[in-house]
Amino acid sequence: QSVLADKKSLRNQEPCKRLELYYHDILFDGTDLANATSAKATNETALGDFKFGMLIVFDDPITADSNLLSPPVARAQGFYFYDKKNDYNAWFALTLVFNSTQYKGTLNIMGADLMAVETRDLSVVGGTGDFFMAKGIATFHSDIFQGAKYFRLKWDIKLYECY
Amino acid sequence: QSVLADKKSLRNQEPCKRLELYYHDILFDGTDLANATSAKATNETALGDFKFGMLIVFDDPITADSNLLSPPVARAQGFYFYDKKNDYNAWFALTLVFNSTQYKGTLNIMGADLMAVETRDLSVVGGTGDFFMAKGIATFHSDIFQGAKYFRLKWDIKLYECY
Amino acid sequence: QSVLADKKSLRNQEPCKRLELYYHDILFDGTDLANATSAKATNETALGDFKFGMLIVFDDPITADSNLLSPPVARAQGFYFYDKKNDYNAWFALTLVFNSTQYKGTLNIMGADLMAVETRDLSVVGGTGDFFMAKGIATFHSDIFQGAKYFRLKWDIKLYECY
Repeated sequence: QSVLADKKSLRNQEPCKRLELYYHDILFDGTDLANATSAKATNETALGDFKFGMLIVFDDPITADSNLLSPPVARAQGFYFYDKKNDYNAWFALTLVFNSTQYKGTLNIMGADLMAVETRDLSVVGGTGDFFMAKGIATFHSDIFQGAKYFRLKWDIKLYECY
Repeated sequence: QSVLADKKSLRNQEPCKRLELYYHDILFDGTDLANATSAKATNETALGDFKFGMLIVFDDPITADSNLLSPPVARAQGFYFYDKKNDYNAWFALTLVFNSTQYKGTLNIMGADLMAVETRDLSVVGGTGDFFMAKGIATFHSDIFQGAKYFRLKWDIKLYECY
Repeated sequence: QSVLADKKSLRNQEPCKRLELYYHDILFDGTDLANATSAKATNETALGDFKFGMLIVFDDPITADSNLLSPPVARAQGFYFYDKKNDYNAWFALTLVFNSTQYKGTLNIMGADLMAVETRDLSVVGGTGDFFMAKGIATFHSDIFQGAKYFRLKWDIKLYECY
């Protein structure tokens, strides 16, 4: 069986590793230092009414279930910004940092977060430690959006290259 | 034939997929809300005279020919910033978002845009949908540069891993 | 031997290419235009006391030994930002640009720089030119940190996919 045939069939294979996680983002409002996990590094521009150009840096907790108060299983460190003038739409680049008994290592993720779409796929472009050289797809699903203050995403991370 | 041999020969192979596209960037000047497709998220710093540190967020149209008014075949969502103190030079990270009858999915691209060089190669680091797990090279070529207001790049995207 | 077996064993193999390099960052203080190689694009936020949200754009020299004054073997162009409210911690995305008799081409790198850890792994997510389609791990080690003005990192870059 050729490499090409193996490659072609990858699309139809089950992931070699799959993680279902929840991402919680609590945007700093200037006063809630204890709770906040992200902050605006830039202000929105005047290009439309959907925060175009606002860039948020985060160090956000990742949990195994949807409860913000569950013990984090990882941190998500990175940034997103809003990038559409006539709707909410974002772009993410981040590292999932695992440091638990179950996993040690990182996954690096980037891509468009097309917020108007029910689920959207970003790329897992690399990994380290237990995720050495991983590659795959991270599917984002909007779970809860509470104004500017808090939102939660469900992440379905499917690795198709595991070493 | 071994995997290694297959790998070694990849460099000399034809791409498994090739796309020639045009990227149009119309920088918001504070008044042209209808036409603008990008905006400054940060101002240039005082480190040199070439906009060092200015970061631009964009949601730019991608066309199949060089005409800005041609129907877009994709959007390019992401950012670039200027990063050289003695010349123009930029760095890009972006997602090509396809949502047409021909293609649905995304390509994620990052790398240095060495503007002084005739053509420069960035990395296609991942893909989703029709471009599931893609990897390759995106070659940028400066096509037109009209001051601070409008520029156009020709992108020659060559995928060497297709699934 | 199957592809899977080849893949599984990759973790235990020697890198197909290894580079030990030093990264020097001299942050612009508003006056040292001649020496500075990076500048703040955004100011730190009020989320903690560790520069959370400060984003630095750089065009930094890369040397083969630890001496800042050694002839650069490459440039590192990209950005980092601080992203932790109770300690120093950063996130990097950058392109290593080689243009010497030894190497021509680029390596694209991204990931978390967990500064509190002795060595930390980022992902080499792609490459061009002599590093066509490369993938691997970039291990960062803090070498010297001189306040806000100058720091040096040792980078141990191990490529596991070479073409």
